[in-house]
Amino acid sequence: MSVTASPDVNRVMCPSRLILEHVTSRWGVLVLAALLERSYRFSELRREVGGVSEKMLAQTLRTLERDGFVHRDARPVIPPRVDYTLTELGREAAEQVWGLARWTERRLDAVFLAREEYDKARTP
Amino acid sequence: MSVTASPDVNRVMCPSRLILEHVTSRWGVLVLAALLERSYRFSELRREVGGVSEKMLAQTLRTLERDGFVHRDARPVIPPRVDYTLTELGREAAEQVWGLARWTERRLDAVFLAREEYDKARTP
Repeated sequence: MSVTASPDVNRVMCPSRLILEHVTSRWGVLVLAALLERSYRFSELRREVGGVSEKMLAQTLRTLERDGFVHRDARPVIPPRVDYTLTELGREAAEQVWGLARWTERRLDAVFLAREEYDKARTP
Repeated sequence: MSVTASPDVNRVMCPSRLILEHVTSRWGVLVLAALLERSYRFSELRREVGGVSEKMLAQTLRTLERDGFVHRDARPVIPPRVDYTLTELGREAAEQVWGLARWTERRLDAVFLAREEYDKARTP
């Protein structure tokens, strides 16, 4: 695929927008951030990322694998063992979403405070 | 609202997860990244962020305003003028999603290459 104009996520048809959507998808963010800390087997990852269904996790991993962010390492052992790790490209993306996830946890109180003020200003 | 355990986006019920979802939502990412560069009026912002409907943009801005990320500055002039700017808190979030948006644009070719290899390996 060739790109004639510069990539621009603000353009509807720019393929960079879809990649950004994969990285920032509900489960994509959490999977990438988890994998930055260590590699996971499927069932471990499912336990780590609360609330994700088997189907959604498989789909998220497949999308991230196809984009070149996640490496699926299937070991020919009995019982079969599959580990998911980040590629170098995936690590670059994961560092950013990891930062965002930690920032959100850290700034929770500031958001609560802002919401209180917003709601108070709108209560008759 | 009081938080007893440490915030953890991996827990289904942790409010930090919802905030992360606001920041990384399809339009939230693009709106925050745009506002990092300058303030916008509603109609300008709608032109900048390709493909967003009036309704979705209004809803996204309202969510980001309530979370304390965006300041809505309504000027008592004729015709009425409303500018949207980032708060300090919003700037912190926006810096991270801006970085992610630019990274996606920059690494587009690497993702294309990965996809080609992925698809080739799966073609009979």
